[in-house]
Amino acid sequence: MASTEGSKLWGGRFVGDTDPIMEMFNASIAYDKRMWDADIRGSKAYVKALEKAELVTTEEMENILHGMDQIHDEWSKGVFEVKPGDEDIHTANERRLKELIGEPAGKLHTGRSRNDQVVTDMRLWLRDAISTLKRNALQLITTMVERAAVEMDVLFPGYTHMQRAQPIRWSHWLLSHAVALSRDLERLHEIRRRVNVLPLGSGAIAGTPFNIDRELLRQGESQTAWIISDYETEFLFWASLCLTHLSKMAEDLMLYSTKEFSFLVLSDAYSTGSSLMPQKKNADSLELIRSKAGRVFGRCAGFLMTLKGLPSTYNKDLQEDKEAMFDCYDTVHAVLQVTTGVLSTIKINRGVMEAALSPDMLATDLAYYLVRKGVPFREAHGISGKAVFLAESKSILLNQLTVEELRTASPLFSSDVSAVWDYSSSVEQYSAPGGTAKSSVAAQVEHLRTWLKKQAW
Amino acid sequence: MASTEGSKLWGGRFVGDTDPIMEMFNASIAYDKRMWDADIRGSKAYVKALEKAELVTTEEMENILHGMDQIHDEWSKGVFEVKPGDEDIHTANERRLKELIGEPAGKLHTGRSRNDQVVTDMRLWLRDAISTLKRNALQLITTMVERAAVEMDVLFPGYTHMQRAQPIRWSHWLLSHAVALSRDLERLHEIRRRVNVLPLGSGAIAGTPFNIDRELLRQGESQTAWIISDYETEFLFWASLCLTHLSKMAEDLMLYSTKEFSFLVLSDAYSTGSSLMPQKKNADSLELIRSKAGRVFGRCAGFLMTLKGLPSTYNKDLQEDKEAMFDCYDTVHAVLQVTTGVLSTIKINRGVMEAALSPDMLATDLAYYLVRKGVPFREAHGISGKAVFLAESKSILLNQLTVEELRTASPLFSSDVSAVWDYSSSVEQYSAPGGTAKSSVAAQVEHLRTWLKKQAW
Amino acid sequence: MASTEGSKLWGGRFVGDTDPIMEMFNASIAYDKRMWDADIRGSKAYVKALEKAELVTTEEMENILHGMDQIHDEWSKGVFEVKPGDEDIHTANERRLKELIGEPAGKLHTGRSRNDQVVTDMRLWLRDAISTLKRNALQLITTMVERAAVEMDVLFPGYTHMQRAQPIRWSHWLLSHAVALSRDLERLHEIRRRVNVLPLGSGAIAGTPFNIDRELLRQGESQTAWIISDYETEFLFWASLCLTHLSKMAEDLMLYSTKEFSFLVLSDAYSTGSSLMPQKKNADSLELIRSKAGRVFGRCAGFLMTLKGLPSTYNKDLQEDKEAMFDCYDTVHAVLQVTTGVLSTIKINRGVMEAALSPDMLATDLAYYLVRKGVPFREAHGISGKAVFLAESKSILLNQLTVEELRTASPLFSSDVSAVWDYSSSVEQYSAPGGTAKSSVAAQVEHLRTWLKKQAW
Amino acid sequence: MASTEGSKLWGGRFVGDTDPIMEMFNASIAYDKRMWDADIRGSKAYVKALEKAELVTTEEMENILHGMDQIHDEWSKGVFEVKPGDEDIHTANERRLKELIGEPAGKLHTGRSRNDQVVTDMRLWLRDAISTLKRNALQLITTMVERAAVEMDVLFPGYTHMQRAQPIRWSHWLLSHAVALSRDLERLHEIRRRVNVLPLGSGAIAGTPFNIDRELLRQGESQTAWIISDYETEFLFWASLCLTHLSKMAEDLMLYSTKEFSFLVLSDAYSTGSSLMPQKKNADSLELIRSKAGRVFGRCAGFLMTLKGLPSTYNKDLQEDKEAMFDCYDTVHAVLQVTTGVLSTIKINRGVMEAALSPDMLATDLAYYLVRKGVPFREAHGISGKAVFLAESKSILLNQLTVEELRTASPLFSSDVSAVWDYSSSVEQYSAPGGTAKSSVAAQVEHLRTWLKKQAW
Repeated sequence: MASTEGSKLWGGRFVGDTDPIMEMFNASIAYDKRMWDADIRGSKAYVKALEKAELVTTEEMENILHGMDQIHDEWSKGVFEVKPGDEDIHTANERRLKELIGEPAGKLHTGRSRNDQVVTDMRLWLRDAISTLKRNALQLITTMVERAAVEMDVLFPGYTHMQRAQPIRWSHWLLSHAVALSRDLERLHEIRRRVNVLPLGSGAIAGTPFNIDRELLRQGESQTAWIISDYETEFLFWASLCLTHLSKMAEDLMLYSTKEFSFLVLSDAYSTGSSLMPQKKNADSLELIRSKAGRVFGRCAGFLMTLKGLPSTYNKDLQEDKEAMFDCYDTVHAVLQVTTGVLSTIKINRGVMEAALSPDMLATDLAYYLVRKGVPFREAHGISGKAVFLAESKSILLNQLTVEELRTASPLFSSDVSAVWDYSSSVEQYSAPGGTAKSSVAAQVEHLRTWLKKQAW
Repeated sequence: MASTEGSKLWGGRFVGDTDPIMEMFNASIAYDKRMWDADIRGSKAYVKALEKAELVTTEEMENILHGMDQIHDEWSKGVFEVKPGDEDIHTANERRLKELIGEPAGKLHTGRSRNDQVVTDMRLWLRDAISTLKRNALQLITTMVERAAVEMDVLFPGYTHMQRAQPIRWSHWLLSHAVALSRDLERLHEIRRRVNVLPLGSGAIAGTPFNIDRELLRQGESQTAWIISDYETEFLFWASLCLTHLSKMAEDLMLYSTKEFSFLVLSDAYSTGSSLMPQKKNADSLELIRSKAGRVFGRCAGFLMTLKGLPSTYNKDLQEDKEAMFDCYDTVHAVLQVTTGVLSTIKINRGVMEAALSPDMLATDLAYYLVRKGVPFREAHGISGKAVFLAESKSILLNQLTVEELRTASPLFSSDVSAVWDYSSSVEQYSAPGGTAKSSVAAQVEHLRTWLKKQAW
Repeated sequence: MASTEGSKLWGGRFVGDTDPIMEMFNASIAYDKRMWDADIRGSKAYVKALEKAELVTTEEMENILHGMDQIHDEWSKGVFEVKPGDEDIHTANERRLKELIGEPAGKLHTGRSRNDQVVTDMRLWLRDAISTLKRNALQLITTMVERAAVEMDVLFPGYTHMQRAQPIRWSHWLLSHAVALSRDLERLHEIRRRVNVLPLGSGAIAGTPFNIDRELLRQGESQTAWIISDYETEFLFWASLCLTHLSKMAEDLMLYSTKEFSFLVLSDAYSTGSSLMPQKKNADSLELIRSKAGRVFGRCAGFLMTLKGLPSTYNKDLQEDKEAMFDCYDTVHAVLQVTTGVLSTIKINRGVMEAALSPDMLATDLAYYLVRKGVPFREAHGISGKAVFLAESKSILLNQLTVEELRTASPLFSSDVSAVWDYSSSVEQYSAPGGTAKSSVAAQVEHLRTWLKKQAW
Repeated sequence: MASTEGSKLWGGRFVGDTDPIMEMFNASIAYDKRMWDADIRGSKAYVKALEKAELVTTEEMENILHGMDQIHDEWSKGVFEVKPGDEDIHTANERRLKELIGEPAGKLHTGRSRNDQVVTDMRLWLRDAISTLKRNALQLITTMVERAAVEMDVLFPGYTHMQRAQPIRWSHWLLSHAVALSRDLERLHEIRRRVNVLPLGSGAIAGTPFNIDRELLRQGESQTAWIISDYETEFLFWASLCLTHLSKMAEDLMLYSTKEFSFLVLSDAYSTGSSLMPQKKNADSLELIRSKAGRVFGRCAGFLMTLKGLPSTYNKDLQEDKEAMFDCYDTVHAVLQVTTGVLSTIKINRGVMEAALSPDMLATDLAYYLVRKGVPFREAHGISGKAVFLAESKSILLNQLTVEELRTASPLFSSDVSAVWDYSSSVEQYSAPGGTAKSSVAAQVEHLRTWLKKQAW
């Protein structure tokens, strides 16, 4: 008992020893030490509130603040020494504080529970993490938008169901993913508002009996100590949704960079070779991006399953949050940067992209030609389908059908139908907001540039 | 070919027959017919935009509107007849429209793809669904708050780690769950804003070539046709998180209604008996509530897995969204109502609840007693722990230790320590916001009442 | 009370009414009625055991058996009438039995709990379901194997990382998926052994106090009533893994049937058109196959989450099993059949497949050429890589490099290198088991044919 | 280029540099180095096959074997130095081999791809991991069985729906979980058979062109290189199912160790205190056990989502397998040991357990009393229910009803009904296999002891 007593916070009571595997199982210092800075910031704010509530003297407060600064210094320089009894970052910092300043260190925990301290640290850490991810995402969106601005004249097949659908601008594709990401940032911003509420001083369950100024601690809400993991699961889900978006984009890019499509070439910096096949150049970066949606979702799913059916308030099960949060953050952080790298350096084969357009992709336009002559769309669609079928039967391209041949499908076709077979004209029709006409795409570039400038939260 | 041609939208081209299992696999009418009202509303809005763009005449528009009203009538009365070729609600309504008004029906699909129609219908449906869930949740929160107001004087043990922690008010427990739900509503509100954007007229991929007034259609954004499932996964996750909260509350209530706790008795309306054991009265309602978090999360997980790695734009895989959405809505809808029923009718055993309080739950207060005499909290915690240990060794209650005995742990104890052993005084200490003092709990009741009044979105 | 009393099993005790939403929430008859046949079979077996234990007379047994046969008849003919109080299939059948034969019906439940009855029914149902899925899977494997036998001479690019890797036989691709499915069947067989254990007569928790011959009921194990859902989660996971395999195969086929690859054409029976674009022919069947992995996994994930942290023995939460099981079965059942249809009718474009082979896919063979001349593989790999780079720099094909040019990379190249550039010879090198040589592929066809013949479990 | 060329396997071709984040993203050495031993064993087996195929000389083989032994030694002693270019354990070991023995090191990779090497290493590693987990699980089962043997006379309430159901033996509870675990081991054994197949020498996709003796390498099957992750997902699911079982057991134990139940006291070695509340003793070990089911399932879910929709053969996405596998193994390894520790040291409060039995738990026996007098069970159940209701109305215990009072429910009650109210007699009725009678429980202990002795796979 004696030997371990000092190093455990509940030292006064236990008489048994702890199983070493249990110790390891229980300890979180191996991963939660990355919150050292948040822990110090939280404690510094808290001691000021304690002083205001006259629970520590001004001198004690200053000792504690000074001690905390020293600990900060040690962590910054990489010389902080984690000792065997330090089961988590909070214990470690408090143990060190006591070594540095003696007894007053013991006053720092007045009226706070480990749980409210942990939650505070996590929220402070996450606030910073969100800011970083926001910067990463803005950089990626900027890359997409500026690339879209430059390559606006490149046409290529738009696909639905992995089949060629209609001619669109390459920039239209880029912007569609930029817009999806901008929505992800909107969601992240909403989460950030909920993260930005600190439960410090809320105690374990009953509240705090001291006159702690919780407003000072930016605690805008009561009961937070009970509702501990919402913002975490929200973040984990956010990461899953964001990476699911990027998995789709990566899938498109992988398709486009197959030999068969040949629309794109990844830079060597984002490809790797094969240890067996000398000619291979694999889009490893894209495959990694695609794969991470699964990883991150697994963390979200796992944590939600851990939460399911738990009783209210703190249960040790909640310790699972940290590794999930850190891993998701690290993953999204890396994925956003790698994706930015990929999109900055990818080379497009404009010639191949444009050569992939084919007249049958204008079959919808052919139907619209008839619609403009008063044919109901359903009927026009059927007529156009017959023309496609006719061309296929003759093994010719759709635009190689003569007007006479077209007339077997509908008498309304006349020589002006030839105007349909121009890809550039085709895309220019789609000038409504969200369309693929140059004016629409340019408007969207401007819209996103403006939006990017406003992102200062 | 001839016989099926008429009933398929792409009739003009296909020559083969379809495998009946494939037909069934492909068809969604069995479940998407519940969007009949949304589909009609969407088409009515769209035909007005077509008329404004001069793609249908005013007369045609009126025919279509009138036809749509008739179809609405048929669905309302339960006499609409789904026919074999109707693979989804959109085809069914359009087929019926053609029967009713003839050719002009074929103009309704001008410039819209099935996909933008499906997405529009789902958004319209979901907007209503969210309103209903909001009403259900507000009713539940109101029940909790009003019950908390009435039963504010009941004390019982607050638990952490399923172990008795500190005396709290029963209302404090109720309100903690009310607050969690109020946050869920805040999140639902954010989702609703994103649902409330209609992609009608955005086409399959390139946009619309017609002068469709997308603003008229409340389309505030471009590119929506590409980003089709975000709001759905958000809703599915929302449902998972909300029911995970309720699973926790149900778990607490199940504990409290065990024979061993005996804090609560469920009304017979929410219990069932055993087919084998005549004395059993099972809290089936609570078990069902607890279980549904899994069900709903499964839908979310399944849909996210379906989305992972899909190429951009529409792929048939996305058809999985509907059953997931409907099932989650139905489940949350039922759970919220049943939970309201349970909480309205549950009886509390005030005597048992208060008898479950024990002096060792005031050990933290004993430490605070010393803190108020200047002992650093860590040291005070250790001293209080020693007192607990001493009482256990003597097999007496903590408050049965004499002042002399307490002094073996610390000389600072004196006769005024007896004031610690009062549960009512104990809770009254916790008067900071979020605390369990009567004033704090009452403030929270008022805060929530005010919040409830403002919920008019 | 009076009116509902008769229809509830625990009629004797409850005095309150039930919330209609709670009733609906609680009832499972809407979906569990599909186990009607299993329920009747289980009860017939049980009454025989009751008679052997002298808990019913021979006459009563015969009455019950006869009544059960009548009920069977009603279900078969679709005339069984579900009544308001029938909350599940067990109650419905028992209620009907009582109507048909009067009092002795009440003896059928002696010594069994609802729970062991439910588990028995589910196991009986699942045993049949597994047999059906096995037949479906064997049919699919047979299709693959026989197709592989017929089209064994077709070569095409094998891909890794979605990049062309080495020439392989098309049959090699087919068989790789057939082998994966044969493993899935092996796993299913293992599960079937565990399903085939009936807990009938194990009671709710304590066991049965009667001399029920559990061996007669094929109960080989004790305690089954406690371990109720293992075989179900195993089945749900099995379905997830099996459909994940098929999602991979579908992904390959979708790639191969893009315009860009053009290796395959789906039959019209398994494709659909676009409501907007007349020229589109979408591989909807493949997209549905791919999507179902998510759906089925969602059911598995949801049920596992429901199980997590439940106390032992029966809890109402377990009612979630049935919809999950039925949905997964129905889905796998449909997917296996549709996949068989797709693979039976798909047309391959042999010319395009072979034209997609290119000399750089023989770069590994080029390295092996050097290995055979004594160069360590790593070095040979590097030399071959230089040759690839050289050809790329010159914009020529790898086999267009002269021997002199090749010698700049290694002096060991001589005129016999020309033998490397033959795709047919290349594949014939891979004659080890599992290789792509004709002999290896043919051996595998024979291996699978033999395996298929043995599948009689 | 020059500086990194040597350290990358595909050195001959690339000219660009790699993004450092991409490098880190791509590298797996940080976690896959734990397979160092498996990698060395795999390479040693492979070089022997190369020698047999005359692809290396006997001398070269011996050099390689000797070099590998040296590398083994370095890893064992913790002095192996990972260098910047070592992206994975395979590259690291091969790089080191080249440093030690020069050129012949380059021959080791002949005819194998990185992928078949990785899969081989993982299988070798997993085979050992499974053996360890088996030992852990057997130790836990042994603990349960021997404890059940010793404490066989302790009765306590069996619960269903968290409500007291029937008196059972404490050993009955213990054995039910032992049986569940024994089934988990049965499943693990099945997986092990599939793990025990080595794909070494199967190449990337086409097979191996050399006369590698794949039988020598214990490769019993062809095509394994294509079906790479089945055994991994099986293992991940196994871990999820096993820990879901333990989560249920932990939930029971947590309930039993609440103050309200007080059936059990955890040893201090498996409890922790509270940093705020001196009197708290929390069952942290049980909470951790319960929580880990979520963690492990998350890994399984994540990996399955990563697999969904991937094309066949190797894609970089599969790199996600390793961290998932290692984490699940480490977690199950720790959980099994901690659970063994908990169950070895937990103290039961026999007096409290037996005092928790109450006469209403014999209501089923009361019904059986009537069944034995010829009353159909359904009717007997109703009568017993009336008796329960009568006792409740009078606020007396069920066994305090007089025979006259019982007769108001049924005239068949007579004075011999008093024999029903004995808990020991009650449990002895359940003597069928799987029942709670002493003979049944003892038989099960023997059954499990025999089974444990046979576990030598």
